Amino acid sequence: MTRTVVALGGNTLLRRGEQSLDAERRRIREAAALVARLRDRGREIVLTHGNGPQVGHLLLQQEAADVPAQPLDVLVAETQAQLGYPLQRELDNRFDDGAVTVVTQVRVDPDDPAFDEPTKPVGPFYTAEEAASKPFETARVSTGDDEPAYRRVVPSPTPTSVVESAQVRDLLSSGTAVVAGGGGGVPVVDEETDAGERRLRGVEAVVDKDRTSQVLGTELDAAELLVLTDVSHAYLDYGTDDQRPLTAVTPAELRRHADAGEFAAGSMRPKVEACADFVDGGGDRAMITSPDHLWAALDGEAGTRVTPDD
Amino acid sequence: MTRTVVALGGNTLLRRGEQSLDAERRRIREAAALVARLRDRGREIVLTHGNGPQVGHLLLQQEAADVPAQPLDVLVAETQAQLGYPLQRELDNRFDDGAVTVVTQVRVDPDDPAFDEPTKPVGPFYTAEEAASKPFETARVSTGDDEPAYRRVVPSPTPTSVVESAQVRDLLSSGTAVVAGGGGGVPVVDEETDAGERRLRGVEAVVDKDRTSQVLGTELDAAELLVLTDVSHAYLDYGTDDQRPLTAVTPAELRRHADAGEFAAGSMRPKVEACADFVDGGGDRAMITSPDHLWAALDGEAGTRVTPDD
Repeated sequence: MTRTVVALGGNTLLRRGEQSLDAERRRIREAAALVARLRDRGREIVLTHGNGPQVGHLLLQQEAADVPAQPLDVLVAETQAQLGYPLQRELDNRFDDGAVTVVTQVRVDPDDPAFDEPTKPVGPFYTAEEAASKPFETARVSTGDDEPAYRRVVPSPTPTSVVESAQVRDLLSSGTAVVAGGGGGVPVVDEETDAGERRLRGVEAVVDKDRTSQVLGTELDAAELLVLTDVSHAYLDYGTDDQRPLTAVTPAELRRHADAGEFAAGSMRPKVEACADFVDGGGDRAMITSPDHLWAALDGEAGTRVTPDD
Repeated sequence: MTRTVVALGGNTLLRRGEQSLDAERRRIREAAALVARLRDRGREIVLTHGNGPQVGHLLLQQEAADVPAQPLDVLVAETQAQLGYPLQRELDNRFDDGAVTVVTQVRVDPDDPAFDEPTKPVGPFYTAEEAASKPFETARVSTGDDEPAYRRVVPSPTPTSVVESAQVRDLLSSGTAVVAGGGGGVPVVDEETDAGERRLRGVEAVVDKDRTSQVLGTELDAAELLVLTDVSHAYLDYGTDDQRPLTAVTPAELRRHADAGEFAAGSMRPKVEACADFVDGGGDRAMITSPDHLWAALDGEAGTRVTPDD
């Protein structure tokens, strides 16, 4: 069996502007069918997923109702089950050994510079006036409209380890597919109490799900990392007339392109970094492609395919 | 190691009328401390919990915001992570092998008579006018006020098996404490498609968490079931001047009392039935008591203690 981490973009499960639950359910079934096919081809599966639209909905709901608002770490956990349950159920329907969702925490460094400068937008859009009245940090975001729009911004620290990776490994060994690291995992800091004891504490931040997928994959000695998104490749000069897909590349080549300013922050850049780190960390190969191009990519005929430097 | 299922009442985690998240967090820490102490005394732990107040909050939030409302099965899953994440984190802080939350589905019979007559109230209170406009079944509930109050009512079918019990067993065997079956588990029916394939389908219902705790415990060959609630014992003639605590009892005695009309439906009755079925199903002992009385109960000096018929 090839141990494989499949990272599903949040927008592959609920596209922006696509509000219907029927659409979400259809995408979940499609994702499960894809994972089942990977499984049929001899893979042990860890499935990770984004949660941007889902956590946005929970934040919006909390603002609208007069009940205690849960902190962001708890909301991230909720989205792990909100998406994990239907994913595991649909996987149960497709193979005998079944699947299970593990609520997953990721350690982040309390001194991560991300905590000094929250940049990741989450939740609903606000007017300038609304934003000014909020009890959290907001920033102006680009919407294409004339009217300025604001969103809450939170830190997006780099994950250093996955708290439950030993349990994920146990489950994989017994033949179960595992849904883990949803939404990038619930960020926790590992700190020492005044009494000298170690403890985990949840923090209001979000972790990039591709970075978490890489950390989890490396900890599990996975062979493959498949990053599924809405484009078939990572591109150089993306969005220009000169854009060129990256096909077969090495981590060193990717890092050189990244240093030269390619790959948008918070979008393609974390995917590229995750793939480079995964292969440098011992993985056989990593890929960035869309679900539609996955099968050709696995055959070396599509997608951005990252293999070790010689 | 003694394999033990600990069933925490939803109201031991967030008491009715107690809205603050600080209070909920304090109760979660207390529950984790109790579980850690059980673990220190040589037990393998499966922790189940209720979710009544929490699922109520999610339903209220969904009504208040203009985003797609998730069905009840998904909300139950969300509460499993909402409570499971802080429970597992606090358990991680208290012992080395850690804890993990497993999103859990329970099979129910599609022909369960509960589906014909929804009786379990969930979510917010409505006026008669509001209730009449809702797209779901409501029923008048007793509040003590003059004004009639209504709530949504859903079926509460009996669980027949836990979909993830093999995975819970694997995790226990590797030394991990497992949070599972939260809110009684996500109810699913196991049906055959037109194409003759088996599939699980989520249903809008809620399952009693004590019944699920029993089914899970029996499937795991657990030795103990500890049902923790807000009273120290099950009582005969409860709430009358003649109320008498049940101390050492057998399943047959409990069933005789139940047949005679003791134990309130939806409250003490499922706890009593769960304990009787657990012991009849091979368990060494089951108990109903409060967290404060647990240690005395384990020493045979408090609580309702159920052991096999001779």
